[in-house]
Amino acid sequence: MNRVPLPTLERLATYLRYLNELESREMETISSAAMEEATGINAAQFRKDLSYFGEFGKPGIGYNIAELKQRIAEILKTEHEQPVILVGAGNLGSALVGYNGLRRHNFNIVAAFDNNYNKIGRQLWDLEILDVNDLKTANESLGAKIAIVAVPAPAAQKVVDMLVEAGVKVILNFAPTAIRAPKGVVVRNVCFIQELTVLSYYLD
Amino acid sequence: MNRVPLPTLERLATYLRYLNELESREMETISSAAMEEATGINAAQFRKDLSYFGEFGKPGIGYNIAELKQRIAEILKTEHEQPVILVGAGNLGSALVGYNGLRRHNFNIVAAFDNNYNKIGRQLWDLEILDVNDLKTANESLGAKIAIVAVPAPAAQKVVDMLVEAGVKVILNFAPTAIRAPKGVVVRNVCFIQELTVLSYYLD
Repeated sequence: MNRVPLPTLERLATYLRYLNELESREMETISSAAMEEATGINAAQFRKDLSYFGEFGKPGIGYNIAELKQRIAEILKTEHEQPVILVGAGNLGSALVGYNGLRRHNFNIVAAFDNNYNKIGRQLWDLEILDVNDLKTANESLGAKIAIVAVPAPAAQKVVDMLVEAGVKVILNFAPTAIRAPKGVVVRNVCFIQELTVLSYYLD
Repeated sequence: MNRVPLPTLERLATYLRYLNELESREMETISSAAMEEATGINAAQFRKDLSYFGEFGKPGIGYNIAELKQRIAEILKTEHEQPVILVGAGNLGSALVGYNGLRRHNFNIVAAFDNNYNKIGRQLWDLEILDVNDLKTANESLGAKIAIVAVPAPAAQKVVDMLVEAGVKVILNFAPTAIRAPKGVVVRNVCFIQELTVLSYYLD
């Protein structure tokens, strides 16, 4: 299959998040209208996105939730739990490890690293904070391909280089700085300053 | 001036963040090539974005940093410090209040609210955690138009309704759920699960 374009991926991720949340409720099917209500993505777009993958709802019945979830999770490769490593055991790192939503969506933070000797060896929730210099060795057994970077900007590039060296393939970067990664490694940046700055424009 | 399209806004916010970071260094000008190196946005795009606002670099010299910063900050309305209110004094809220990068970029979290009586009255860094039911009254004097929502998903919509009622115009939402806001109120969503799910696709 061709590469899925990024905006489609983002919508699929949104559908999947909501389908995961439906798990606990006793529902078998969902309509495109209900999906629009829950996600804000319009029903026609939802139907179009799914038909692209050969999924079709039944008129008057909708989409089977379990099947749809399975199918989108396959496309996004989240059917199985993924080990994730975190670098940066500060406030944000702590918020991420303590956030049980990640686990529920098949992302399991299995190790947390820091370079601060006052933190190494201490607990971050149920994890022991490890020395970032042991990252490569530790990941030989952990086998994580996903990493989260939650360190200050000046440290970010060095951490990314270490992660790449340790076999990480995709990185979620919270450091407010542009980082470079070699071909074959994908980086997504989340920057709180940037988000607020964009919003600020709409004030008047 | 016409509304600036979102992708342009996001790039302008990136330039501005970097220009703010240059403040401490003793530099007067920046070239489009140096901007590309620092932000990852290519030099031609940078020049094009600025020419749209009537800003032109001087060949061989580049752009005057102070002028450019001032001009972009005016467009994005971040020349003056903006008061921001936070709802949700959990781990993420604590990370945000403790993050001094926001203040450096003219966003000042002036109040933190929660609905948990074990938290209300306690300190979150230098802020006293306030009762979310006092939000509207408190914002009469604070005058914040920007808010950050860092509460669990089931509470998010109610919080957004209260913020709108209190005069907030733009909202950065970290709750992993779709929220509704009336016309004239702009919401941006940051969802960690979604970010990881999108990245997961690139594994193979």
